Amino acid sequence: MKLIRVVAAGVLLALAATAQAQTDPLSSWNDGPAKQAIVAFVKDTTTQGGANFVPAEERIAVFDQDGTLWVEQPMYSQVMYVLSRVADVVAAKPALAKQEPFKTVMSGNREAIAKLSMPDLEKILAATLTGMSVEDFESQVKDWLESAKDPRWQRPYTELTYAPMQELLAYLAENHFQTYIVTGGGQDFVRVYSQATYGIPPERVVGTMGGTKYGYDAAGKPFLTKEPKLLLNDNDAGKPQGIHLMIGRRPVAAFGNSTGDRQMLEYTKAGGGARLAMLVLHDDKEREYAYGPAQGLPATKVGVFTPALYDQAQKQGWIVISMKNDWRKIFSFEEER
Amino acid sequence: MKLIRVVAAGVLLALAATAQAQTDPLSSWNDGPAKQAIVAFVKDTTTQGGANFVPAEERIAVFDQDGTLWVEQPMYSQVMYVLSRVADVVAAKPALAKQEPFKTVMSGNREAIAKLSMPDLEKILAATLTGMSVEDFESQVKDWLESAKDPRWQRPYTELTYAPMQELLAYLAENHFQTYIVTGGGQDFVRVYSQATYGIPPERVVGTMGGTKYGYDAAGKPFLTKEPKLLLNDNDAGKPQGIHLMIGRRPVAAFGNSTGDRQMLEYTKAGGGARLAMLVLHDDKEREYAYGPAQGLPATKVGVFTPALYDQAQKQGWIVISMKNDWRKIFSFEEER
Repeated sequence: MKLIRVVAAGVLLALAATAQAQTDPLSSWNDGPAKQAIVAFVKDTTTQGGANFVPAEERIAVFDQDGTLWVEQPMYSQVMYVLSRVADVVAAKPALAKQEPFKTVMSGNREAIAKLSMPDLEKILAATLTGMSVEDFESQVKDWLESAKDPRWQRPYTELTYAPMQELLAYLAENHFQTYIVTGGGQDFVRVYSQATYGIPPERVVGTMGGTKYGYDAAGKPFLTKEPKLLLNDNDAGKPQGIHLMIGRRPVAAFGNSTGDRQMLEYTKAGGGARLAMLVLHDDKEREYAYGPAQGLPATKVGVFTPALYDQAQKQGWIVISMKNDWRKIFSFEEER
Repeated sequence: MKLIRVVAAGVLLALAATAQAQTDPLSSWNDGPAKQAIVAFVKDTTTQGGANFVPAEERIAVFDQDGTLWVEQPMYSQVMYVLSRVADVVAAKPALAKQEPFKTVMSGNREAIAKLSMPDLEKILAATLTGMSVEDFESQVKDWLESAKDPRWQRPYTELTYAPMQELLAYLAENHFQTYIVTGGGQDFVRVYSQATYGIPPERVVGTMGGTKYGYDAAGKPFLTKEPKLLLNDNDAGKPQGIHLMIGRRPVAAFGNSTGDRQMLEYTKAGGGARLAMLVLHDDKEREYAYGPAQGLPATKVGVFTPALYDQAQKQGWIVISMKNDWRKIFSFEEER
């Protein structure tokens, strides 16, 4: 009898330990300060009767996308998309092949492409992202996503999301947070895959916004055409502006990785009560990339995690997530180490 | 024994009838074609396995506000707000009292006010709706809502919502529709009371949108200032444009009452599968107002339910709700008739 009891107790303990490991919603995170800050914040804001309790409808959490939820090197995925679309645009209008800036893009000369002027880039964006119906745009992006592959991992871009951030999105959703993407990328572009890739529906994607035009086809059926009219550049100060426009509430948690997210994190932190602001630091050259403060980039460089941003994070209590130290794995297809 | 059985059966029948009456989610609607169309549409789109089943996440229902969810006569509530704010603006800057267009507004001469030019109106809108932080704007609107009263019913504007439409909002929400307000009114204005008045959170209010500016106060705390920069006029073709911008999905149901809602209803109806488009007809002078086709207004008159809109409704299968015939009561404070 005694032996049976001991065995039974052992089995129960083993089962309990397994259950606990299985139910850790942040199992890809090492038990460091970043994970502890997340768990403490969620407990703090969801404990009924606590001083920092936040009603479910006000639990707004905003996430930058490129470099925060998925890989942004060597180029933003949307830039890869635009470059690939140029070929289709030129195929449809062959005369463009001899005209700049299309000629340069078609040459494939990366150095020359990188040197294109802002008006030239605008011409390319207008030609590839506007002029079609919103439905045609959606199917063009879907087609590309199905065939395009990241040059390093040779996988679809939508597989290159960070597993720990996916866990964080799910953990917050389970705790009745409303998670939003707030991206400098095109709002309509990200909406095409946000539900399938992140479980975030299109209405919870805030991005750089363009206008549309209402019209009718030959059969009298109404449709919207994407116009080359910028409504909001959802970067830098545009992020809190976009949040106000699209959500109308100040978030309680914000996650970014570059100077483009600075104002969004400031704005989030400036609200009353418990607030969580975090920055992903790319310091893992082996498993992903190392850039920003990890590489000692000059403070003036924009669009990345600069030393100045690192200093501001220290001063304002934003928590820096070290990919190298805080994440047991980067991608879902990778083994934990 | 037999008597007891008869009595028991009678009691049970009475209880059942009471229960049914209590649980009819559209009890303020008469059992006419409008109510039947709503119930049939909801059954059709929510029946698993049915040909017209719509997954919950795609059940987007959009509602115009003024004249559709609440009273819009004799003036839009927001116009009343703006006129009342002029007094505060002039009190803060007394020199304005002698300048047009403020002088005319302060005179209280309704005829003269109605004749103000568009640039004059824009000056008034800029002075009353912009230049303050988004938080200050919110408290100004809240203060006004608490004190202002409709001239006819002598009640706060937020009590002048239509009881049958409130039931419809609740009925759709119970059936896992996401209800949105899509209004020509100011997005930030309607957001102030949308949750308390309609149970619709601020992020589900689409309206006429203005830009904001990001800045810092003396203590370095960031805030957003409302700017006199129009991003989208959410009327007419602006409604489907606003829906695409803010929601990113085509609605399956749309409700309006004027030519400003025409394109929203067309756009909704043009999607595949079951779609519901309805227009509220103001034909009840006694209990509310009678205007539009009920008064034989000319077809060229904009912003109201014109005879041309009535014709389009007949042709395209939009259902006209007669306030007089379809609604057992108009307001929650009123007895059913």
